[in-house]
Order: sequence, then structure tokens, then C-alpha cells
Amino acid sequence: MDTTITLDTIRHAGQVIAGTVRHTDLLPASTSVFGEGSEVFIKAENLQRTGSFKLRGAFYRMSQLAEEEKARGVICASAGNHAQGVALAGQLLRIKTTIVMPEGAPLSKIAATRSYGAEVVLSGSNFDQALETARTIQSERALAFVHAFDDPLIIAGQGTIGLEIMEDLPHCKTVVVPIGGGGMAAGVALAIKMLNPSVKVVGVEPENAASMNASLLAGHVLPLKDCATLADGVAVARVGELPYRLCRQYLDDIVTVSEGEIASAILSLLERMKIVSEGAGAVALAAVMNGRVGPIYGPTVAILSGGNIDVNMLERIIDKGLASSGRRTSFSTVIADKPGQLSKLLDLLAKLGTNVLSVSHNRLSRNTELGQVVVSLELETRDTGHIRSMMTLLGQHGYKIQR
Amino acid sequence: MDTTITLDTIRHAGQVIAGTVRHTDLLPASTSVFGEGSEVFIKAENLQRTGSFKLRGAFYRMSQLAEEEKARGVICASAGNHAQGVALAGQLLRIKTTIVMPEGAPLSKIAATRSYGAEVVLSGSNFDQALETARTIQSERALAFVHAFDDPLIIAGQGTIGLEIMEDLPHCKTVVVPIGGGGMAAGVALAIKMLNPSVKVVGVEPENAASMNASLLAGHVLPLKDCATLADGVAVARVGELPYRLCRQYLDDIVTVSEGEIASAILSLLERMKIVSEGAGAVALAAVMNGRVGPIYGPTVAILSGGNIDVNMLERIIDKGLASSGRRTSFSTVIADKPGQLSKLLDLLAKLGTNVLSVSHNRLSRNTELGQVVVSLELETRDTGHIRSMMTLLGQHGYKIQR
Repeated sequence: MDTTITLDTIRHAGQVIAGTVRHTDLLPASTSVFGEGSEVFIKAENLQRTGSFKLRGAFYRMSQLAEEEKARGVICASAGNHAQGVALAGQLLRIKTTIVMPEGAPLSKIAATRSYGAEVVLSGSNFDQALETARTIQSERALAFVHAFDDPLIIAGQGTIGLEIMEDLPHCKTVVVPIGGGGMAAGVALAIKMLNPSVKVVGVEPENAASMNASLLAGHVLPLKDCATLADGVAVARVGELPYRLCRQYLDDIVTVSEGEIASAILSLLERMKIVSEGAGAVALAAVMNGRVGPIYGPTVAILSGGNIDVNMLERIIDKGLASSGRRTSFSTVIADKPGQLSKLLDLLAKLGTNVLSVSHNRLSRNTELGQVVVSLELETRDTGHIRSMMTLLGQHGYKIQR
Repeated sequence: MDTTITLDTIRHAGQVIAGTVRHTDLLPASTSVFGEGSEVFIKAENLQRTGSFKLRGAFYRMSQLAEEEKARGVICASAGNHAQGVALAGQLLRIKTTIVMPEGAPLSKIAATRSYGAEVVLSGSNFDQALETARTIQSERALAFVHAFDDPLIIAGQGTIGLEIMEDLPHCKTVVVPIGGGGMAAGVALAIKMLNPSVKVVGVEPENAASMNASLLAGHVLPLKDCATLADGVAVARVGELPYRLCRQYLDDIVTVSEGEIASAILSLLERMKIVSEGAGAVALAAVMNGRVGPIYGPTVAILSGGNIDVNMLERIIDKGLASSGRRTSFSTVIADKPGQLSKLLDLLAKLGTNVLSVSHNRLSRNTELGQVVVSLELETRDTGHIRSMMTLLGQHGYKIQR
């Protein structure tokens, strides 16, 4: 396979995907996050067709197959966005697609992939096992394998994001890009550096899945043992060889963000910017919000790679984000099992300006003495200071708090 | 007050707000909702500054105040979007703003309004009581009152949405617009009919707050007794006089949507289009999704008025939407209190392809005989058919189901 990839390859990809793939917007980030006058923009690939950037690479890659390959069809393994990108590309290019997904994949993602006409095979309990099945079916049926990132044409397709950013914001100073397998980061960094080497390009990984960081430090591709993160779209244990080489050459810097920072960024996008991001989609913004890419001079773009988050997960992130910013808290306390005691406690909490979300009143707890009741409360609060002053006042009124 | 409003007034508003208010995008609605080739677009005013269209009217209205009025400041009463629109307009125009909000307003909305520099006064337990306080402060301090909808300049400001739609999609056939007090619907309908009378303009209200419907039927403004809906942004008991006259003249049709349809539309926007809508924001799309505006011929725009939804409310809507589409279900059943019985039930559920979200195993229920245990389960399912086949199979295995 020819692994040469140049600006011309990316430009060719741009021509091929035009009219099929959306040229997504650069949304101004809320001034309530970065302050009036800040120039932070979100490249909103969550508003891309299929809900992520993956269609770019998949469509370009599959459009360049030989006719006999197209006739036989393609296969890939993916639990998420690549699956939907390949499936829709297949529908649009009239290429039969077989997608192997792990058995535990969210039902909504399986349904979305099927809705684009793909044959979905559920196999194995994790990505590696699904990949093994995919490789078996590939050789049985002589299908073309569409890799999610370690492929020059995939990288060129994802690199079109860089072309669009430079077209829409020519005076851009910094571009921040998430890294999973490294395909998008490689393509975007290459495109931008070829167009204007003075633009700073920074890659971001979750602390818990920093495989590109580890590889760059080691000087070769280094697989991680474990990479559990809520940014599941970039939880890749082993980055690609070609993405690794391109990232080493073209990225100015590479930084990490914590799980809490990712959750807070998702919540900011949801509440303040009114858009939905998946975990992987929020890592670039999380890095900007937490000063990881340095002070913001001039126009800065954070690439939001996708919005395909399972709503069950979204609910958990809302919970986590609210708790970590002090806007929701829960605790238990013991009150006397006499009429009026619960309402006395609730009155006190109302005076403090908290909103009660749930109350559970448990007379049967084993740890309580007779004549006492454990009350567990979930409350909406303003911030961590509000929680502290509430706890102080409850203490002054004789309540013993267990959190 | 001169209540004349013409296309020129709206064009003037457009010039005044340009550069301050965002010209928002028309996002193509997901083909997974309307099918390949459909031309439904979302006018995304949730991506407007302050998260709703209200800044348009507030900024234009306040920019046209006399200098001495600007120097004294303005006041309004609002629990939501109008508050934030007036507050930001005041910050940008350097006009002091006082906003009276009901005491139960969500903490996040109070914080957002304060963040734009407004003085927030919390008063009363509902909007009418807040309004009373606002009127009192207004006369004490000789402030200008900025009405949320019954004001020609506010209507002209909101009407700029219509100008933008016709500029971006000149061949548009149908525009669907939410109705609360009627200010936006009036401005948009007037703008569009003046530019191209052949475009169909349809207003939408929640069934539970159909005050414009009731007024048009009665032939005069008719206040509703009750208007509780999750589309709280359009829960207006009494529409404005001027909006009423303009809607009567310019709307082609007016339809209603149910609470369940609103919740489903919010969930579709969130999951498939990756954007956040408040209840009021989703009524126009809900009408299109449920065929209320007739079959879709040619380009159709649903105006998404705003995205300021409290995340606690959003979680409840996700729950409701998942339940109503058969993607989440819960039930209780009784099993023998012997080792292995719970795992037998869970195995059966796993074989059916459901994902267990929560299990509660209660030995202390009063309704159960000794030797039996009540198990309550919450499950992720594919659709209502999946739930039915699960219930059938559980019955065949002897489980008695209570939902």
C-alpha cells in the first residue's frame, strides 16, 4: 500500500466528498464560558451526517476502491462512529457493507448502523474480539477491509476538516484536535501545516487512554494495557503506525484531560452551547477550557469530533457534571422518628435556597437505633460554596451528615 | 404607542441587530427522521446568543429607547428567555436592567441572567406575581417596561428570523413557527408574507396551552384558565393584542401538538440531530414530525425557538421519550427467595437482548408472602414490539408481571 499522503491527496478527498459530506459550521463558543471577546470556535462535526466526522474518511476510502472490490463489498469492525460512517458511505456508493460490532454495543448504535443498510454482525464481548470475527469473515468472503484510522486515504478524508477550518477562518492561530487512533489528528495536522505552518496544532487525549502520548515518548507505537474512559470514541489502545508518524512530524504539542474535565465540557456544550457531544467529542474543548493549550491568543478552534452518545450515558454525565460543579449533591442524616422532624429539615433546606430533587425516608436501616430514621436527600444547589454553607448550617442545627 | 409594523420596520430591525445578533443556521433535519431526500430544515435559534431568539426583539426594542429612558434603565418580568435577552441587550447597549423572576425559577436561569449584569429580583410564586412586582418597581423607579411580545418593535425584532429564512432558502415552501405570546409568530408571518405570499406559514401551540387557537376561534383575545405544559416557554395564558391581530391576518393555519409529541421531538433533536431544544423550541418540529402541517412538499423550515432547558428537566424528558418510544421499560415480578432465582430471570432477559439498567430486590415488601421476593427492574429495550415479545416470553416462563 502506498502510504504517501500530501496536501493534494487531502484536496482530492475534499473534491470527492463535496456535496455528500457536510461542510460543518464553526460555532462561536459561548462567551459565558470564555468571556466576552474571546475567539474560541467549535468545529461542529457532531452536526455531520451520521453524527461524526467518520463519514469523511469512509466515503473517500470506499470511493477509491477498484470496481471489483466495490462489487464484493467491504467489512469493518467498530462499536461506534466508524460503523455508521462506513454504513452510510456504502449506502451512498451502493457498496454492500458488513459491520462487526461487539455484543454489548448500545442498542441505539446498532439500530443506527442497520438503518443505513449495513449487515450488522454481533460478535465478542469487546472490540478486539469483534475485530477477530471481522478478519475471519473478510477472508471467507474476500471483502475489502476498511480500517478506522491506519490507512492513508482514511487519513486524507479526515484531513478535509483542516481544509474547511482554514477556508472559514484563515486567521486562525490554534487548532485543537482529539486523538484516538490518530487518523483525524494526522490528517488535520498535515493539512493545516501545509497551508500555514505558523498555525499551532495541538492533539488531546484522555489521561486514561493516552496511547499517542505514550508512543511519542517511547519513540515507537506502544500499546496500552488499559484504556477505559468515558471518551469511548478515542479509547484506542494502539494508535496507527501511519498516524503515529504523521503526528510526530506535524503536531506542535500533545496534552491530556481528566475524566472530570471531559464530563464538565460535555455539560458546558449541552447547557451553554446547546449541542450534544460524545465523550471523545469534548476532549479538545476540555483542553481549551482548562488552559492545557496555553493562553488563548487569537482565533482558536476546538474540533468536536462527534455527538453519538447513548442517552443513558448522557444522563450519567449530566449527573457527574452537576455533582462535580457543586450543582447537585446528596447526603444522609438521622432524625428522630417523630411527626414534624422531616418537615423541619426540609424547611431549613428551603430557606437555604436549595431545591429538593428526591427524599428517601428509611425506617428499616440496620444501622439506626429504634426511634430514629435515616433520611437520604438529593438536592439542587448553586455551587460548591453553597454546599459548604449548607453543611455548616446543618451542623449548627445538630444534624450529623453522611455523604 | 404607534402599533404600525411593516416589512420596513423589520428590515430596520435587521440592520440594527446585525453584528450583535447571530444570523443562525438552517440545519438540515436528520434524514433518519424524515427519510432520504426530505428537505426539512431547523432554524436553530437555540444556537443564538443567550440560547433563544429573544435577544432579537429585546435588542431592537431597547436600542430604540429615548436617551433619557436608556439612562434610567429598563425592567421586565420573565422566568426565562426574555429575561436573558433583555439582560444581554442591556449589557451590550449599556442600559441598566432589572429583571423580576418568580422565586421558583431554575437556579441555572437565574445565574445566566445575572451573568449578563442584570439585577435579578426574585418575587412571587408564579409569573403573574412577578409581573405585579415588576410593575410596582417600574413606577417607583420610573423605568421603561420591556414587554416580551405585545410591542411592535419587539415583534419587528423577532420578525428578522423570517428575513433570514427567506434569504437563506428563497425557494422555501412552508415555515412552521411556535406560538407563545405570539410575538415571534406575528413578526415572522408578516415578514414572510410580505416577501412571498405563496409561502405557507403555520403556527403551532401545545394542546395544553393553545391560547392563540382559542382566541382565533373566539374572535378576540381569550385568556386560558390553565396552561401547564413542558413547553414552558410558550405557556402563555393570554396572547398579546397586536400579535393576535397579526396572526389572524398572516397565518395560514394554526395547529397543536401533544406533550408526548413534544418530548419525542426533543429526544429526536438530541439523539439524531445532536442539538438541545427546550420544550417550546420543539413544538414546530413536533408538528412537522407528526404530519400536522400536511404532507411535506418542497423545502420546509421548523423554527427551533430556544434551547434553554434545565438539565434536571432534560433528564425527565429523556426518560419520558425513551419510555414512550419503547426504549426503556420497567416492571416488577415475584420470584422465590432461593439462590439462583434472580440470576435465572436475568439470564432470560439477557437472551432477549435487553440491557438491565437497574434491579431492586425487596424482601421486605408487605404484599409478598414469606419465601418470595419482589424484584423491580428497569430495562433498555429496542421498541414496543421488543417489550411485547419480552412480556410474552416471561409469561410463558411463569413470571407474573406488574407494570
